[in-house]
Amino acid sequence: MEHPVQENLPPVAITMGCPAGVGPEIVCKLFARQVETVNNSVVLGDHGVLTQAAAALGLPLRIVPWRPGQAVLHGTMPVLQVGAELPLPIRWGKPDGATGRAMGGYIEEAVRLIRENACSAMVTCPISKKSLQQAGYPYPGHTEMLAALTESATVRMMMAGPRLRVVLVTIHVALNRVSGLLSVAEIIDCIRTTSHALQRDFGIARPRIAVAGLNPHAGEQGLFGDEEQRIIAPAIAQAGEDAEITGPWPPDTIFHKAAAGQFDAVVAMYHDQGLIPFKLLHFTDGVNVTLGLPLVRTSVDHGTAYDIAGTGQADPTSLWAALTMAQSIVAHRLQWRRQ
Amino acid sequence: MEHPVQENLPPVAITMGCPAGVGPEIVCKLFARQVETVNNSVVLGDHGVLTQAAAALGLPLRIVPWRPGQAVLHGTMPVLQVGAELPLPIRWGKPDGATGRAMGGYIEEAVRLIRENACSAMVTCPISKKSLQQAGYPYPGHTEMLAALTESATVRMMMAGPRLRVVLVTIHVALNRVSGLLSVAEIIDCIRTTSHALQRDFGIARPRIAVAGLNPHAGEQGLFGDEEQRIIAPAIAQAGEDAEITGPWPPDTIFHKAAAGQFDAVVAMYHDQGLIPFKLLHFTDGVNVTLGLPLVRTSVDHGTAYDIAGTGQADPTSLWAALTMAQSIVAHRLQWRRQ
Repeated sequence: MEHPVQENLPPVAITMGCPAGVGPEIVCKLFARQVETVNNSVVLGDHGVLTQAAAALGLPLRIVPWRPGQAVLHGTMPVLQVGAELPLPIRWGKPDGATGRAMGGYIEEAVRLIRENACSAMVTCPISKKSLQQAGYPYPGHTEMLAALTESATVRMMMAGPRLRVVLVTIHVALNRVSGLLSVAEIIDCIRTTSHALQRDFGIARPRIAVAGLNPHAGEQGLFGDEEQRIIAPAIAQAGEDAEITGPWPPDTIFHKAAAGQFDAVVAMYHDQGLIPFKLLHFTDGVNVTLGLPLVRTSVDHGTAYDIAGTGQADPTSLWAALTMAQSIVAHRLQWRRQ
Repeated sequence: MEHPVQENLPPVAITMGCPAGVGPEIVCKLFARQVETVNNSVVLGDHGVLTQAAAALGLPLRIVPWRPGQAVLHGTMPVLQVGAELPLPIRWGKPDGATGRAMGGYIEEAVRLIRENACSAMVTCPISKKSLQQAGYPYPGHTEMLAALTESATVRMMMAGPRLRVVLVTIHVALNRVSGLLSVAEIIDCIRTTSHALQRDFGIARPRIAVAGLNPHAGEQGLFGDEEQRIIAPAIAQAGEDAEITGPWPPDTIFHKAAAGQFDAVVAMYHDQGLIPFKLLHFTDGVNVTLGLPLVRTSVDHGTAYDIAGTGQADPTSLWAALTMAQSIVAHRLQWRRQ
């Protein structure tokens, strides 16, 4: 019953992430589900580690070697072995130098394959930032590494789910530094990147973008903070995209409105302003999409979860959602280019 | 079919709020529902305005005068006329000096009746802060006015709903002032007030209280902000209540855990940290409970909504939830005193 998938597109590359984390497990669980989504995707990782994970989970997977350009067979898990095979058995939850280097290699390989048009997009499983740096990669995380590998000047993190999409103006900074980091230029850039992505990657012709205020009640006319009047409102006025851009909205009600379908995305001023509502609605099915890269990259929205690696408890839902979204973005971009 | 309600407790006082806002409408809609909840409650407000609202809504309410000490009749809406009757018709959405003074009077009367044991608790409909001040009441809002009338040193705002309870350490201040306002003493006070209220008012013998961090990922070991290490963790360690107090938790995941039933309340460091998740889960059925007062006071969690006053669109769900919660707190306090 095996037959080559007839697709016009090359497969999506799923990077296995840290070999000692939950990446191998969620990859195996995803392919074991045999859902339609996985049909045209391949894993960049380690054959032995995936075999060990599948066996530990009791999953009857057919793990087959894959090489760029080869067709993908239904009912199999195609794996491109990147680098030398890791020594087995892998010790779950215990990353080391070898796992760190391997993990970085999967990401580099995915970028290379997409450049060569041998893959159409990449979906990343979680890595350890610490392990990445110990392996000699000078990046704080995935996003920065991809920006460097693709020479992208500005990238933005979008968190996307069926009910809510949020894009962050500032991310991993102390709360008391947020106000000082906001600028008209930065917010305009974030609005424009969001608008462009909604049009090209999500197929929304005229996006409705809500820009959140920074302060309670959006400052209540300057009563508690003036960043709305000084920075955010001018940025909204000047963004001038082919989109409906409104705000600054009171932060405590705008996410409810967006989740009710009144907006296509919310531009949030700081990490928790966007992630508190996002994770409340999309704790298991949230996807992290990197905007501003020349390639399509989505990611699970959870970490390596070393504490449960190897125990069979990891949930592949976010990986499934990330893969589905990557395929959807690839399709929308094709349509966009044809217009 | 009318019969006096056999209750050991005096009725709950519902203050009508701004006569030109949605207060009269939600009060009439609540009593028209004839739900069990309203059985032992009375309205402190204006007979003529309520009659006008009921007529405009086409509600066949039996509005009857009530005096302190009188029994409450099933199937009626008992109203205590506070002050002189307002000139009719009221102009919806247009507060003036007379409505401001009347509105303040309802609140003062409720406090007086509770002190005299003629009412058991108060539930407040929305007022206009501006109108309150224009009428000569020198308070920024309801809560401050009640604190002054009852000579309460510290009050805390709890937002409570079926899935989530949050208590705020700081409230109406600019985001960039939050860090400077946090102190060990302030957080300890907030934790203790929360713990005491959960035990006495909500009947939870050993409350599980989650204290949120301030920064993304709760600072990630000082990487983005040190308030967790410097202020929040020491406060948790010293709070020493007969409760399970944990934290500082990463703000973007703690509300999901609390909503899933792992905690009885979350102590949030700032307005939007608590209200973004709260309003996402409880947009229509949220209740504002003032902790730290000698009397029981709950409130709807919405404003006067002048833009829709008189149009019949206001939703009485939050008022219904506030009344139910006030009655529940009164019952729990009785039980507490008997222990």
